[in-house]
Amino acid sequence: MERKKIIGLIGGGECSPEIEEAARAVGRGIAEMGGILICGGLGGVMEAGARGAKEAGGMTIGVIPGTNPNDANQYIDIPIVTSVGYARNIIIVNSSDSVIAVDGKFGTLSEIAFCLQFGVPIISIFSWEIDPSIITASTPEKAVELAFSVAREFK
Amino acid sequence: MERKKIIGLIGGGECSPEIEEAARAVGRGIAEMGGILICGGLGGVMEAGARGAKEAGGMTIGVIPGTNPNDANQYIDIPIVTSVGYARNIIIVNSSDSVIAVDGKFGTLSEIAFCLQFGVPIISIFSWEIDPSIITASTPEKAVELAFSVAREFK
Amino acid sequence: MERKKIIGLIGGGECSPEIEEAARAVGRGIAEMGGILICGGLGGVMEAGARGAKEAGGMTIGVIPGTNPNDANQYIDIPIVTSVGYARNIIIVNSSDSVIAVDGKFGTLSEIAFCLQFGVPIISIFSWEIDPSIITASTPEKAVELAFSVAREFK
Amino acid sequence: MERKKIIGLIGGGECSPEIEEAARAVGRGIAEMGGILICGGLGGVMEAGARGAKEAGGMTIGVIPGTNPNDANQYIDIPIVTSVGYARNIIIVNSSDSVIAVDGKFGTLSEIAFCLQFGVPIISIFSWEIDPSIITASTPEKAVELAFSVAREFK
Repeated sequence: MERKKIIGLIGGGECSPEIEEAARAVGRGIAEMGGILICGGLGGVMEAGARGAKEAGGMTIGVIPGTNPNDANQYIDIPIVTSVGYARNIIIVNSSDSVIAVDGKFGTLSEIAFCLQFGVPIISIFSWEIDPSIITASTPEKAVELAFSVAREFK
Repeated sequence: MERKKIIGLIGGGECSPEIEEAARAVGRGIAEMGGILICGGLGGVMEAGARGAKEAGGMTIGVIPGTNPNDANQYIDIPIVTSVGYARNIIIVNSSDSVIAVDGKFGTLSEIAFCLQFGVPIISIFSWEIDPSIITASTPEKAVELAFSVAREFK
Repeated sequence: MERKKIIGLIGGGECSPEIEEAARAVGRGIAEMGGILICGGLGGVMEAGARGAKEAGGMTIGVIPGTNPNDANQYIDIPIVTSVGYARNIIIVNSSDSVIAVDGKFGTLSEIAFCLQFGVPIISIFSWEIDPSIITASTPEKAVELAFSVAREFK
Repeated sequence: MERKKIIGLIGGGECSPEIEEAARAVGRGIAEMGGILICGGLGGVMEAGARGAKEAGGMTIGVIPGTNPNDANQYIDIPIVTSVGYARNIIIVNSSDSVIAVDGKFGTLSEIAFCLQFGVPIISIFSWEIDPSIITASTPEKAVELAFSVAREFK
């Protein structure tokens, strides 16, 4: 069985309308490419991305920090209810074949750090660019294209 | 959006052919009822259950303890790669609307304990029966039926 | 360097005065034997045990589920602030050379299950007796004596 | 009861002799100021810092990722055996009143990110300086002095 690619989307729980639009386009792109979107399941970039994925008929997973599946935004198909707080950031990273960061602050930075540490390919769009192994993309479409082309292969 | 029911299947990483058959029937039943099967993603009961779910056209999630998605058995559609070891047991429980235990030893017991603590309905078939709030089922079919009828509702 | 023995004390966050007295005697005994007490850091058995250990001049560690060190009771010297919720139960077990269970409900049961799974010696006093490898003690003093005599050795 | 200050020391598991010397001086300083050193418990900066603390008569806690207390270096008094892998990074940060980063790569970056996110004061010496709220120190002695003066107060 060939598994579908699982692409992580990370970014802030609150964001501007412009960032929201970018995240939504990333979500749409992941779904159109046949991938599954995994994210932190809450608001801001996570909600906009999940919305975009659902609009394009995709599937969405929300790895939430708390204990109540209703913490997940309305565009999440499968809430993974971790109950381990921000330790869930590591689970998002490890579960992703590649990760796209859109904007985001320190929580996002921690996830980018884990990507770099674990060797999970990370694409940045309007986000932290603190290491040369972070791949920067100028548009959501480019970010999605890159995310699939550099995604980890597990054999 | 109405979310599909997510039913947990717990049990040992190794088991007898009889238990395997029971787990497979549980997996099949969950899929036939339109539910998503979530489990620990490894061998034994987890693999047999995921196999059954796939045979019935269902979807399977494997919440694995390690860092490599290939640790998941071949019937897992979506590996959640937690990297947090046995702390992943808590994630399986919290992510389930109800849980079916088939056989199993101490790892399964810890999951049953968390079900009891968090109020996640737990159905036992050939497994631990150490508290009156554990619902016992005599057949896999009964277990599945019960799992859907007592599943948590989140509004 | 010879490390001091670290003895886990587990049990309910609420308990009767009799259980409180037993837990306090366990804490006192651990300290008198030169051990360090590790527990979940909150109320009930955890607080009574930590109080007993401090009264006998011992040291106490509280592995708390939340993010605020002040969640720890007043008898905790070192709060380990895990922020991972009940996943902290596993950390208590893994950090203990042996564990004493005093009373307790489902949270305690999950910890006993992890002891059995990981091979951490577990002594029960007025607690769950669901497996023959659980050692039962009739008094707090006996429990402490047993805890030190069966404690894991790491070389 | 007044709790002793708990100061986190973070940095790479491998490091140059110069960095080792700096970490050792940080550990010594923490102990001399009456603080408890908490770190990841392994090699490199963690081992050098713990060594320094022990040389000055201090106490050391090692929050290790694995399941065996012997993974902790020989200068650790109290191994906290988390078994949750790199999720232990979050536990170090949350358990610290302030944190000193000495050198370090992506693991250290994730810890710095969590410091910034949770509001744990972070002092950097030869480490990441990616945000204005990271306090930089030019010597180990200065770093220790700063760590105590900005440490969180819990009332």
